[in-house]
Amino acid sequence: MKLLEERILKDGHVLGENILKVDSFLTHQVDIRLMHKIGEVFAEKFANAGITKVVTIEASGIAPAIYVADKLDVPMIFAKKSKNITMNEGVLTAEVYSFTKKVSNTVSIAGKYLSNEDKVLIIDDFLANGQAAKGLIEIIEQAGAKVEAVGIVIEKSFQDGRGLIEEAGYPVLSLARIERFENGNVIFKEADL
Amino acid sequence: MKLLEERILKDGHVLGENILKVDSFLTHQVDIRLMHKIGEVFAEKFANAGITKVVTIEASGIAPAIYVADKLDVPMIFAKKSKNITMNEGVLTAEVYSFTKKVSNTVSIAGKYLSNEDKVLIIDDFLANGQAAKGLIEIIEQAGAKVEAVGIVIEKSFQDGRGLIEEAGYPVLSLARIERFENGNVIFKEADL
Repeated sequence: MKLLEERILKDGHVLGENILKVDSFLTHQVDIRLMHKIGEVFAEKFANAGITKVVTIEASGIAPAIYVADKLDVPMIFAKKSKNITMNEGVLTAEVYSFTKKVSNTVSIAGKYLSNEDKVLIIDDFLANGQAAKGLIEIIEQAGAKVEAVGIVIEKSFQDGRGLIEEAGYPVLSLARIERFENGNVIFKEADL
Repeated sequence: MKLLEERILKDGHVLGENILKVDSFLTHQVDIRLMHKIGEVFAEKFANAGITKVVTIEASGIAPAIYVADKLDVPMIFAKKSKNITMNEGVLTAEVYSFTKKVSNTVSIAGKYLSNEDKVLIIDDFLANGQAAKGLIEIIEQAGAKVEAVGIVIEKSFQDGRGLIEEAGYPVLSLARIERFENGNVIFKEADL
């Protein structure tokens, strides 16, 4: 997605060896117009796939996921990272380790919002080690639902996430794929969409 | 907002003495069409207020806040509940105690996304004890920005939040105001919008 790559080059900041900070338009302050475009690109790709739910994980996944769901006209579910006292019956869970935040979280979705009739598109803001997406896939499969694909806004292609998910049999579609960081600059490889 | 009150009566669940569970359309699974309506109602009210930013707090505030920002055509910022290793310079913080989750969080916004030229509309999914809104107000004032109002999707009017915020001098506008729960049913008082 050319518009996204241009935005990353313009407003993204490379920190250290493998962190890309995009908090001016995606992960903290959100550029709504860009979210519309992101939603449109995924929705066009999956227009005829029979998607019934978009699933993401709180918190930075919500903004892009909601616009994908919006354009597909289906509900969006965001998995929770902490136990909530109002969530107790029929909760499906998976363990997800975040390398960024250096903590392991029990990620959960209430089972009643997914059934074996659901075809799910997973959307997340970043794909690095693939732990979040793997956890979401586990939960969706526990519910008997089908994971159609994993849609990613920014993929760090030099990390293991894509391989992990593809080996498990799920297609990954990323709007921007980062091959490497070089002297604080972002070098892309060809994106999927 | 009649549509919202009807939806609460239809799909909300009262748990115990003061918890309303609305995770089928707002706080876990998100009904996008309802979010559009919520966005429209707030945007109509603040169309001429010169709002430059919508601010909320992760995670359940993001969905309604993003549609308010969308209809007002301004960016949305979601305050973070945990320290992120990619957020380090110029971070504004406030302490927020969550009675629901029984934990205290340091809530933060990167200072560079708010300035003394900003007029901010705070949006949140729930108003109960007002701690989250109070923390957001503190942060926005640290940045020298102006808080125009606090917009709430569901207010528990029997708790202290509204009084706390109004006494501090900020208007509160709620789409649904719950007077009390009675035998597991929701009794509304007149809403602001």
